[in-house]
Amino acid sequence: MPTYRKKNFPVSDVRRFLEPGPVVLVSSRWKARSNIMTMGWHMVMSEEPSLIGCFIWDQDHSFEMIRKSRECVINIPTVDLAPTVVKIGNTSGRDIDKFATFKLTALPAKKVGAPLIEECYANFECKLVDTSLIKKYSLFVLEVLKAHVAVAPKFPRTMHYRGHGLFMLSGPTVIRYRRLFKREILNA
Amino acid sequence: MPTYRKKNFPVSDVRRFLEPGPVVLVSSRWKARSNIMTMGWHMVMSEEPSLIGCFIWDQDHSFEMIRKSRECVINIPTVDLAPTVVKIGNTSGRDIDKFATFKLTALPAKKVGAPLIEECYANFECKLVDTSLIKKYSLFVLEVLKAHVAVAPKFPRTMHYRGHGLFMLSGPTVIRYRRLFKREILNA
Repeated sequence: MPTYRKKNFPVSDVRRFLEPGPVVLVSSRWKARSNIMTMGWHMVMSEEPSLIGCFIWDQDHSFEMIRKSRECVINIPTVDLAPTVVKIGNTSGRDIDKFATFKLTALPAKKVGAPLIEECYANFECKLVDTSLIKKYSLFVLEVLKAHVAVAPKFPRTMHYRGHGLFMLSGPTVIRYRRLFKREILNA
Repeated sequence: MPTYRKKNFPVSDVRRFLEPGPVVLVSSRWKARSNIMTMGWHMVMSEEPSLIGCFIWDQDHSFEMIRKSRECVINIPTVDLAPTVVKIGNTSGRDIDKFATFKLTALPAKKVGAPLIEECYANFECKLVDTSLIKKYSLFVLEVLKAHVAVAPKFPRTMHYRGHGLFMLSGPTVIRYRRLFKREILNA
């Protein structure tokens, strides 16, 4: 299991880790029970406030837990956790306690009741700020209230789902195109 | 410039290429003028119908072009096009013809007026099917009507934006976790 030492990270900059498109783990808590789901359909919607749009299927056990508690944590796993990520997606919180079954550590969050997954590279504590798109699109609009990110490595080795059981792993991060950007865009 | 031979691809399966989170190029056409923008904030919202959610900033020239024409094409560039992708993001269609300036080939689409970018790995012809989230979130809900995907390579070498001028390049696609998936999930 990976272990990461983490520090606070600006919530307006979590796009650094979400925009590349990794599979994430979403942890939730409702009525004294915790759960975890895998999620591949998400997007950055705003930097300030820090908004993330997430598709959560209405058949997922997490759907009602997050809708009712109005909170969750988006956790970014690295490839070391790949088998666990798949197994979390295979199972339902209706049947098992995923933290116990998969030997993951639930750490208390600062701003929400849902737990952080210690073994993940980053943890973003989120509040559900708009429920109006849930019925039509299963779309949860979350605001990141607090972010915890590993101090190293600078760029995590993440998993990106291609469907059909295939993962793309993140490759190198390159700076060679940086000089081509207009200064205003880099500073935006 | 890369050249790809493409074939029709099932629209319900475009998530294979979008869920991993690449930067895409969005081409549009309105009043006999074409344009291209770079886009990093997008998500799969549904497979059937094939819906994609896209954040388009209201200051982008493409914003009004897509809102008014109610059509666009999502094109997936590979890393060969990286300098062009950056330059497209640096410039505005108010000032230049991006196809001409960046020597890209506009091919006619089958179902929409917006052009396909021939040099991209894949082209997804899209109709704007929900405008109700544009004002509040700059969120365009698009339906993919037709998809063209390169016959090779099977997995494109895509660019994933980390912000601040940094791109993550896609790494290897691995099948070694496939055996861990429940059959129902693989077949979903």
